[in-house]
Amino acid sequence: MARKTGSNGEKTRAAVEEAAIRLIARHGFAAVSMRQIAREVGVQAGALYLYTPDKQSLLFDIMRGHMEHLLASWEAEAPDPATPAVARLERLVRFHIDYHIHRPEKVFISYMELRNLEPDNFAEIERLRRAYEGVLEDILRAGAADGVFHMEDARITTMAMIAMLTGVSTWYRDSGRLQPAAIAAHYVDMAFRLVGGARIAQAAE
Amino acid sequence: MARKTGSNGEKTRAAVEEAAIRLIARHGFAAVSMRQIAREVGVQAGALYLYTPDKQSLLFDIMRGHMEHLLASWEAEAPDPATPAVARLERLVRFHIDYHIHRPEKVFISYMELRNLEPDNFAEIERLRRAYEGVLEDILRAGAADGVFHMEDARITTMAMIAMLTGVSTWYRDSGRLQPAAIAAHYVDMAFRLVGGARIAQAAE
Repeated sequence: MARKTGSNGEKTRAAVEEAAIRLIARHGFAAVSMRQIAREVGVQAGALYLYTPDKQSLLFDIMRGHMEHLLASWEAEAPDPATPAVARLERLVRFHIDYHIHRPEKVFISYMELRNLEPDNFAEIERLRRAYEGVLEDILRAGAADGVFHMEDARITTMAMIAMLTGVSTWYRDSGRLQPAAIAAHYVDMAFRLVGGARIAQAAE
Repeated sequence: MARKTGSNGEKTRAAVEEAAIRLIARHGFAAVSMRQIAREVGVQAGALYLYTPDKQSLLFDIMRGHMEHLLASWEAEAPDPATPAVARLERLVRFHIDYHIHRPEKVFISYMELRNLEPDNFAEIERLRRAYEGVLEDILRAGAADGVFHMEDARITTMAMIAMLTGVSTWYRDSGRLQPAAIAAHYVDMAFRLVGGARIAQAAE
């Protein structure tokens, strides 16, 4: 996809993506027009096509960007694979909660708008989602192999744990009773419970 | 809301609701018109207004109907409140998985379209959601009081468990590796793990 480069172009590109995320999260992909996005950014509708060839590409770029950034962010802070599974799980849970709590709109879109991806685009997003699920599944299997985690079915436990953790983005509010660090500590505790690991992690106050 | 009564009227009303659920789940509420729903049902657009005054009422009725039916279905099969918490939790988990696995579109809409409810309607749906969350929270608190469940924070455990269980509707496929009863058994096992309950439930094959 052709992108205008340079500082102003990059700024506008970011503004286009931010406006699209805001509008799609609010109204849904099918109800949002390129014209509406242009108006939100403050550019002419025609100018939008300097940044994206069409609405489908824009959606795909948002969803792929979200998943690639998620994977890259984890890579950047993942412990060495030789690290014991217990420590890797704790790190991944804290990372996942922190990442998802601060991006409710992107998380919402990346789940809700799967239905609007064209088949090739859907396949690519599925591949990235599987890669991320694989990160967790590998840790769970490593812990099971070491005898520190116990579970009936690593695949179902992976899916259940991801749903449990990601759910935080549906109810978390900045004004709520608990701060993000305390919430993360609770989820670490619950993640260890799910895999029958020792209760190494205590909930912080 | 005025509803045409009698057998044909009821059939059409059900057809309107089914068509609306299908279209909203596919395209999102904001992108679906009353005209489209009428076409899907095979009636004139004007005829739709015999069944619902407007699109907002239709959405609210779908979402309220879903939550009320969920609560009533649980009431119909809930064990006596004097039943030990362990047995009540197992029953609720099996009920929740079975209910949600078979209604992916309604589950999807009832989460995704909260944003499109007018304030009074949103408040009513929130009240019903809280009531259902309360069913689980009461069981968890009863088990904690009896010393059979152990958790750091009953409210967060409730939200985490509901997200974990409901997540099944995002990945379950009829053609998948596991049958619903086996999946439910795994989730019962995981629910007990979350509250540190004895592993009473074994995953079925």
